[in-house]
Amino acid sequence: MMSNRRVKNKPHIMPTAVPILEVFPNPEPDREYEIENSCPEFTSVCPKTGQPDFGELIITYAPLKTCIELKSLKLYLQQFRNTGIFYEAATNKILDDLAKACAPRWMTVVSQWRSRGGITTKVTARYALKER
Amino acid sequence: MMSNRRVKNKPHIMPTAVPILEVFPNPEPDREYEIENSCPEFTSVCPKTGQPDFGELIITYAPLKTCIELKSLKLYLQQFRNTGIFYEAATNKILDDLAKACAPRWMTVVSQWRSRGGITTKVTARYALKER
Amino acid sequence: MMSNRRVKNKPHIMPTAVPILEVFPNPEPDREYEIENSCPEFTSVCPKTGQPDFGELIITYAPLKTCIELKSLKLYLQQFRNTGIFYEAATNKILDDLAKACAPRWMTVVSQWRSRGGITTKVTARYALKER
Amino acid sequence: MMSNRRVKNKPHIMPTAVPILEVFPNPEPDREYEIENSCPEFTSVCPKTGQPDFGELIITYAPLKTCIELKSLKLYLQQFRNTGIFYEAATNKILDDLAKACAPRWMTVVSQWRSRGGITTKVTARYALKER
Amino acid sequence: MMSNRRVKNKPHIMPTAVPILEVFPNPEPDREYEIENSCPEFTSVCPKTGQPDFGELIITYAPLKTCIELKSLKLYLQQFRNTGIFYEAATNKILDDLAKACAPRWMTVVSQWRSRGGITTKVTARYALKER
Amino acid sequence: MMSNRRVKNKPHIMPTAVPILEVFPNPEPDREYEIENSCPEFTSVCPKTGQPDFGELIITYAPLKTCIELKSLKLYLQQFRNTGIFYEAATNKILDDLAKACAPRWMTVVSQWRSRGGITTKVTARYALKER
Amino acid sequence: MMSNRRVKNKPHIMPTAVPILEVFPNPEPDREYEIENSCPEFTSVCPKTGQPDFGELIITYAPLKTCIELKSLKLYLQQFRNTGIFYEAATNKILDDLAKACAPRWMTVVSQWRSRGGITTKVTARYALKER
Amino acid sequence: MMSNRRVKNKPHIMPTAVPILEVFPNPEPDREYEIENSCPEFTSVCPKTGQPDFGELIITYAPLKTCIELKSLKLYLQQFRNTGIFYEAATNKILDDLAKACAPRWMTVVSQWRSRGGITTKVTARYALKER
Amino acid sequence: MMSNRRVKNKPHIMPTAVPILEVFPNPEPDREYEIENSCPEFTSVCPKTGQPDFGELIITYAPLKTCIELKSLKLYLQQFRNTGIFYEAATNKILDDLAKACAPRWMTVVSQWRSRGGITTKVTARYALKER
Amino acid sequence: MMSNRRVKNKPHIMPTAVPILEVFPNPEPDREYEIENSCPEFTSVCPKTGQPDFGELIITYAPLKTCIELKSLKLYLQQFRNTGIFYEAATNKILDDLAKACAPRWMTVVSQWRSRGGITTKVTARYALKER
Repeated sequence: MMSNRRVKNKPHIMPTAVPILEVFPNPEPDREYEIENSCPEFTSVCPKTGQPDFGELIITYAPLKTCIELKSLKLYLQQFRNTGIFYEAATNKILDDLAKACAPRWMTVVSQWRSRGGITTKVTARYALKER
Repeated sequence: MMSNRRVKNKPHIMPTAVPILEVFPNPEPDREYEIENSCPEFTSVCPKTGQPDFGELIITYAPLKTCIELKSLKLYLQQFRNTGIFYEAATNKILDDLAKACAPRWMTVVSQWRSRGGITTKVTARYALKER
Repeated sequence: MMSNRRVKNKPHIMPTAVPILEVFPNPEPDREYEIENSCPEFTSVCPKTGQPDFGELIITYAPLKTCIELKSLKLYLQQFRNTGIFYEAATNKILDDLAKACAPRWMTVVSQWRSRGGITTKVTARYALKER
Repeated sequence: MMSNRRVKNKPHIMPTAVPILEVFPNPEPDREYEIENSCPEFTSVCPKTGQPDFGELIITYAPLKTCIELKSLKLYLQQFRNTGIFYEAATNKILDDLAKACAPRWMTVVSQWRSRGGITTKVTARYALKER
Repeated sequence: MMSNRRVKNKPHIMPTAVPILEVFPNPEPDREYEIENSCPEFTSVCPKTGQPDFGELIITYAPLKTCIELKSLKLYLQQFRNTGIFYEAATNKILDDLAKACAPRWMTVVSQWRSRGGITTKVTARYALKER
Repeated sequence: MMSNRRVKNKPHIMPTAVPILEVFPNPEPDREYEIENSCPEFTSVCPKTGQPDFGELIITYAPLKTCIELKSLKLYLQQFRNTGIFYEAATNKILDDLAKACAPRWMTVVSQWRSRGGITTKVTARYALKER
Repeated sequence: MMSNRRVKNKPHIMPTAVPILEVFPNPEPDREYEIENSCPEFTSVCPKTGQPDFGELIITYAPLKTCIELKSLKLYLQQFRNTGIFYEAATNKILDDLAKACAPRWMTVVSQWRSRGGITTKVTARYALKER
Repeated sequence: MMSNRRVKNKPHIMPTAVPILEVFPNPEPDREYEIENSCPEFTSVCPKTGQPDFGELIITYAPLKTCIELKSLKLYLQQFRNTGIFYEAATNKILDDLAKACAPRWMTVVSQWRSRGGITTKVTARYALKER
Repeated sequence: MMSNRRVKNKPHIMPTAVPILEVFPNPEPDREYEIENSCPEFTSVCPKTGQPDFGELIITYAPLKTCIELKSLKLYLQQFRNTGIFYEAATNKILDDLAKACAPRWMTVVSQWRSRGGITTKVTARYALKER
Repeated sequence: MMSNRRVKNKPHIMPTAVPILEVFPNPEPDREYEIENSCPEFTSVCPKTGQPDFGELIITYAPLKTCIELKSLKLYLQQFRNTGIFYEAATNKILDDLAKACAPRWMTVVSQWRSRGGITTKVTARYALKER
């Protein structure tokens, strides 16, 4: 059977509605354990040059009451595709947004960016619950 | 916002005869030493999409009175082949079941899952004897 | 000295003018030799799902009268960032566009795409001058 | 001496609805080019022992009029999850099914299976259009 | 449940009966395709020094009417465990024995041996049906 | 369109003006986080032999009020291209210059040099704010 | 000159005399330093199935008055070639035997075993002088 | 003994005299054999941007009457350190210069350049004696 | 038991008698098969600088009537330890000596040398029986 | 120009004068930083068998007033080329000699030796200033 999926290539309009980070109840809230999400397909735009940046995000956290839902995480990260933002700001903003959404025991966000001008950059930021 | 997507894990297709985790006497119960079992052939089913998930389990523990018998471990893990269960629940359940079966000094279960939506996930959970 | 480069993050508008592939005279037109350009930062959009695709392009060719200018190649490939196009169509279109721009003795375009649904795809297309 | 162990492959647990391999029109039918699909998440069941087998499939072909649709390929391969079939039969059957579905210029199926009894096995089968 | 499998360590007596290489009917006798078996757990004894040798065997063949049964291949190779034989003789004998057992279109046996006196050795032998 | 960029090869005069290390305001001055810059394209000249040295620099720091601007870092490191300086002096001078420019919480500079006389050298130097 | 070393392949009889672990005086008994011996050619027999097991041993210790002589270590480990013993027992027995022979400040034995039933196992045992 | 080699860092002046490629008589002129020289420390300057380029050269040839002397090859390649030249011109010029100096049966020069603008480039040029 | 092997370090005098390459009868003289010996522990002396050179030799050949005995090969190669010889001469001499000793159907000697002046060298020489 | 460097191969006489380890003033004596020298071309002679040993030395230290000069380190290590010495003695002697020559804050010497009898050995020894 031949599907009819092939249409003419046409410019794709990115959605304007901002994705919302969804969470689900942690199935083991009493045990401190870790979840690591590696996202090697991250891209944003350099606000200075207008050129795209490419990187890998590694998000590690110990969930408390909720865990981050993966599909909403994917959509959240895609928001940066056409957003102008520097490495350091992106890393810290993602940490803030994710930590706010799921209120983990602790969380680390590492971003590893591809070479620009012969230099690669890695940014590592950490968050911990105040009351720990 | 918390989504309501997580329903109770329910068997997808559930084999009738449940394999029983067997143990054998630890040949060196007085020495604290470690056993690590790597199981790269783990597969289960995503309860949301019905699609199979693939991962590698790494089980590390310090046996006390008993060790886990490898063939029964293999059969135990095969139970998940047609079972609908999320990453976090699977990892914690395996840790609970194995720790209950062999009562180790401590145990760690790491599950590393293949990419879904461009994101790979690793879950790490630990158990320790209360009286340590 | 502190530069003033950090502005408020703001959505970045991609240029509307279509980049033109530029070429420069081959410094050794009488010798058949090869140029290989690896572009690991390629991204486009799946026309069916609206989700971004990520891949690596490897372009190999034997220049005749002209070579492809690297900066214009970079800008040309960035056009696909927000364009909906399938793997096979993208690979063949890039081959056609580049071959038309520099009229090489021969050219090969290989595209290696990251995993979708647990499957990775590689497309390889070749072009050769008719009169060879 | 020839053993009599090979019985007719029979379904182990057979899903009721058989997935249908879908194809779509080749966007460049006049150019002979190649598509390679790597599927590292393949699993089937050994008909002799009832134990699961795990492998990676690499499917390479030159499309003629149609290409294989990736989602239907994924669902097609999942059919083998609870099917009892030997390495050699699985590889040749997949080649036959895929070649029948998309009628390529040529096709190769390679299956690389994880170690059993300390031995890993790789099976490579090829198909080509008769009239070539 | 605790199994009773742990007995006192006792010297293990190797079986005296010579394993017989078993074969099974090739499921696709009309198609020339390839099977590769990698056996990284091969060991024999150096007849000169009495010291054990360790190596990896890679057996590749195109089956005609029959294929080699894997369990009998494993037992066949274990025969060499306490047998004194040189690298070259072992490689050629295994090729002869396997080719005689399954009468393939062609067969290659590669043996890669671990370092002795700072030198590693690889032996490659090939067989082809005369009437090809 | 053919660009006119190809000029006659001519000796290139390196700029005489000393590049100045620029910084920009740290977007998250209250959080201690890390930035790592890997610069695999470093080269200087051995003052004893006059021969070029090649190495990779890895600069890691926790910014306080300012971060190092990447383009000025690139130009700063290029100053060493025709400068005679030993491994240890270069590593310590770069640490001093960078720490002076951005006054970080702490900073580490690692330089890994390619083999000379069969010996490779790695130098690691660290800086920390006195008042910490 | 042609040597006459090639004799008819004949079954090799393993020596019946049990090798004795020899030691030699530590040349630096006053300094606590470490020796690591990696033995990737270890093999024993599974007492349950009679099948050979293959593994790598890594022995690390800080010698006190004596060091283990390498040739006697090799012969000692060869004793296990035809001995039925489980992973855990083998690892602990080797640790006990070696620690008894050379009375080190401390010793660790790690055994990494090849895959059985899709599962690899690593066992790590440690010894330390009581009076430390 | 303490050497007095450490002087004040001072700008290093590169030699103005052009190095001459030296050759030595091929010790086996009647046998066609190959010599491959890998030079991972090549650097030149981009004539368009004035920025340094970094690459690896792999020179392979079959010597006829003479071989290239390695020290003079090193000095010859260092000439490009402060020379503005494009990838394609550099590769072809090095091939021409080396082939002229040693008149080999054949020669290949491959240059692999580090990423610029996210794109890496490899240029491969070949030479063969006309009368072959 | 403590061995008495540790004597005072004393300069070691290398043997003056030239080792003779020994061969043994090829166990399969009628089949053309290949033997590859990798010798990563080769060292000689540069005749120009007096400095040691280090390399790896890979010797591949198809034996005719005789094979090279490994221990005599090891001793033969050790002759070069304190011999001044260039890369090209060493490679060709070893090929000549080995081919003379065992008269193979064909033989290849590859020597891969460690970096000198930032350049690594590989030499590949081949021999074939005239009457082939 | 053809150089006259190729002379007849002749036995090379190693220098009889013992090289002296030279040092130079540490350019940053007030900062505790580390220098690591990797020397993969180390060779000595086994005093028991007269056979050559091959290894890699990794020397790491924090200099105080002086640093080790690299050329004299190279010549110092070459002294062991024809010296009979065991692994443990060599490692400790090199640590003693180097620490005596440059009086570092601390120093570590690791020696990793190639396989003998199927066993590789690594020796790690450390030194620290008494008054620390």
